[in-house]
Amino acid sequence: MKIIKKIEQCRGILEDLKKQGLIIGLVPTMGYLHEGHLSLARKARSQCQKVFMTIFVNPVQFGPGEDLEKYPRDLKRDAALAEDNGIDYIFNPEAGEIYKKDHSTYVQVEGLPDMMCGAYRPGHFKGVATVVLKLFNILPAHKAYFGMKDFQQLAIIKKMVKDLDINIGIVECPTVREEDGLALSSRNKYLAPDERKNASIIYRVLKTAQKKILSGKKQAGVIKREALRELQDNNYIKNIDYFDIRDAASLEEIKDIKTAGDIVIATAVTIGQTRLIDNVVINKKK
Amino acid sequence: MKIIKKIEQCRGILEDLKKQGLIIGLVPTMGYLHEGHLSLARKARSQCQKVFMTIFVNPVQFGPGEDLEKYPRDLKRDAALAEDNGIDYIFNPEAGEIYKKDHSTYVQVEGLPDMMCGAYRPGHFKGVATVVLKLFNILPAHKAYFGMKDFQQLAIIKKMVKDLDINIGIVECPTVREEDGLALSSRNKYLAPDERKNASIIYRVLKTAQKKILSGKKQAGVIKREALRELQDNNYIKNIDYFDIRDAASLEEIKDIKTAGDIVIATAVTIGQTRLIDNVVINKKK
Repeated sequence: MKIIKKIEQCRGILEDLKKQGLIIGLVPTMGYLHEGHLSLARKARSQCQKVFMTIFVNPVQFGPGEDLEKYPRDLKRDAALAEDNGIDYIFNPEAGEIYKKDHSTYVQVEGLPDMMCGAYRPGHFKGVATVVLKLFNILPAHKAYFGMKDFQQLAIIKKMVKDLDINIGIVECPTVREEDGLALSSRNKYLAPDERKNASIIYRVLKTAQKKILSGKKQAGVIKREALRELQDNNYIKNIDYFDIRDAASLEEIKDIKTAGDIVIATAVTIGQTRLIDNVVINKKK
Repeated sequence: MKIIKKIEQCRGILEDLKKQGLIIGLVPTMGYLHEGHLSLARKARSQCQKVFMTIFVNPVQFGPGEDLEKYPRDLKRDAALAEDNGIDYIFNPEAGEIYKKDHSTYVQVEGLPDMMCGAYRPGHFKGVATVVLKLFNILPAHKAYFGMKDFQQLAIIKKMVKDLDINIGIVECPTVREEDGLALSSRNKYLAPDERKNASIIYRVLKTAQKKILSGKKQAGVIKREALRELQDNNYIKNIDYFDIRDAASLEEIKDIKTAGDIVIATAVTIGQTRLIDNVVINKKK
């Protein structure tokens, strides 16, 4: 496995591989890899002949006061894990390689970023869309792999790819969870032991709401209120940004479940000092 | 020469050509071709092995009340001219092929579009950057050809290409002019005969300002005032959006010519009902 720091080197390697007619996979990450990332790597490995992983903590998607500085980084550990899971190349640029001093061009998907996490992290998804487009331009792979845990991010990237005619297939991969249901996240590392124990409530409450819908409850407002009450009753949850029942494609809020299409139930809560997100999807056609 | 209407067909043809190892050129236009466009086509022909021209009147770059509906179109004439000037493929999509009903993703270069034409055409350069990025994604050629008449557009496209790591070489081509100096433009067709005759003042005033700078005049403000007065004295000029002396890269206004780098002198005026733009460049290092 090779670690690449420079854009030009990436381009050269990718062009050579494409000239050989190989199918290329891309797994964009911010590093500090966990089983969720590694499941993306293995999926890419199984579908492609060469796989690039990018490890880049993108400053532009962090807001003031967010955890850019303390975001966990460990390239040595990441490189070993990536190699064990089938990655051929890691692109790990410095911030200055990606954002030149006078950088001033951004991509904005309008609409989708205004709600859910976007409402609480202004500019976050503008930063995400911009860096993902840049990575796609640096490494124009055939397929790129994203996890469903970041559901809104995935929806925005799919919309960007469609609207801007980007010729990369987006592969959605299921959220990987701990035994008690907590979704894997690099930020779980911030949790103190008792916070970690209580964090399992997030998935439990999502599943309860999912079960209510699957068992025929129709009033999204009632299901949402019951979920919020359960979250509020947990002393470790310091803040609830949202607990929403939304259309899985448009991310519009659902009022009447009877007439809804595919549904995503999504939440963002703060446990101790750590903001965590999670979601479950209900495919109505199944 | 082949005329293509569909994105997928474009992709297929381009991929085949790239597999053959051919160098591909791209000439984006809004059609109603004149010698300016054709000079781009011939330049592309001389540098590339296969050349695509796009002909697409991009609705997103027209503001309310602008000339989207009446913008001249003549595909049959354009196709003959393009073929005669070395174009291999014309991509001429319907608007609905480029902008799906729920299109909501845009590219914005911040800063550069706020001045000059951008100040008078809000959203124009957002529309330009977005469609150019889409065309680059549909037809990822090796080189793309743009005229210097649209100087601000060219500056914005170059910035976008740099900031978003787009792997296409931008080739700048000189403005083509009528004998009396009027820059070729599809919009010249709107001019009545006496308006057309008077339109030569635009280039004349630009050249006068250029000569003053080349002969050693240092005060940009004085040169600008003299040029404005000359334009104002012409009865056919109904409006002057701007006559500016700016840095050719940053597009910042120049106060003192002594300390300036490359300079662009640019203007936008309305003759009768027709808004026309033009510019001249002074390369200080030459």
